[in-house]
Amino acid sequence: MSTQLRSLETRARILAAAVDQFIRFGYEAASVDQICAAAGVSKGAFYHHFPSKQALFLALLENWIQDLEASFETIRDEVDWVPKRFERIAEVLCHVFEQAAGRAPLYLEFWYQATKDLTAWNASFGPYQRFHSIFAEWIEEGIRQGSLKPVDANLAAVTLVSLGVGLVLQVALKQEGIEWGRIPQGAMDLLLEGLLASPDPLK
Amino acid sequence: MSTQLRSLETRARILAAAVDQFIRFGYEAASVDQICAAAGVSKGAFYHHFPSKQALFLALLENWIQDLEASFETIRDEVDWVPKRFERIAEVLCHVFEQAAGRAPLYLEFWYQATKDLTAWNASFGPYQRFHSIFAEWIEEGIRQGSLKPVDANLAAVTLVSLGVGLVLQVALKQEGIEWGRIPQGAMDLLLEGLLASPDPLK
Repeated sequence: MSTQLRSLETRARILAAAVDQFIRFGYEAASVDQICAAAGVSKGAFYHHFPSKQALFLALLENWIQDLEASFETIRDEVDWVPKRFERIAEVLCHVFEQAAGRAPLYLEFWYQATKDLTAWNASFGPYQRFHSIFAEWIEEGIRQGSLKPVDANLAAVTLVSLGVGLVLQVALKQEGIEWGRIPQGAMDLLLEGLLASPDPLK
Repeated sequence: MSTQLRSLETRARILAAAVDQFIRFGYEAASVDQICAAAGVSKGAFYHHFPSKQALFLALLENWIQDLEASFETIRDEVDWVPKRFERIAEVLCHVFEQAAGRAPLYLEFWYQATKDLTAWNASFGPYQRFHSIFAEWIEEGIRQGSLKPVDANLAAVTLVSLGVGLVLQVALKQEGIEWGRIPQGAMDLLLEGLLASPDPLK
């Protein structure tokens, strides 16, 4: 294995161990020592990759967000018809949900930490504004191509992001008695129903 | 003033001072001493009303939820046409928003505390299930009265609650560049658009 590859692999192992430790003990309570032990790396190796526990936390957030943004870009490149794009987004949300289940304490602690620190704040909440911009752009594109009604694109984008945030939070909280698997598609369909230019332009 | 009235007034003063202290210092950092000083009550009076800081926190949550549930009941009693009820809900959300702005750290800390404690958890997240049931019932009523499409009432209720939770969270986080005042009505209109049985049964 090349040095560079080994370095990437070490980094990935630290990140995976950190998620596990954060979920089990909470961000505040988890220590760099524990994370190193769980990842099987030395403290020297840890600090080579991450100057602090907070830097690690920010890297985790950034990873999650970049994955999401990358899948949005793929969807935009592959699909022209905007309502179809949003259907694909609902599929992506399903995967986010699978990861999110049971992670509520971690998310809420991250967000709470973020309210106390401007860097973490920007890392945690900046992305929602980027997602908002992407969706607003798509909706305007949909209006131009005639697939969506001439709605207020900003408002529709806020509605979409809010719905997504609310769904993820509720899934993370493991609300019982609700079968979450099919919810994102269903919710997106309900919202699209109100946005589509004609009764059924998808067919 | 009667003893009972004075007692209620003291309780209300403690609750108001607690919100203020929690917002300024956070739940964990705020002390009973500070809250007593801010409310102008003795520690004896405090503990007469609330056995602990956590009991105070639960009472705050319960107050907020009861206010919301009371307004839902009023709406149900006053309005028969279900789509109109949801329009009224959007108006109520606007008031919630006014209160929520800038309170993100407090909400997130409360929710985070709730993940560590079953009693707080039930107080914080039980209500979403109650709201879900209320909305699902209303949607079924709307389907019966012919004002709503024969959608999956459970799914539509999840969508509504998620949208509400997501909107409140985003407002609480004071996302910039978005004028939140008119958002709840607009978002509700978008969603209703997909739920209404005929193009415009409200008129």
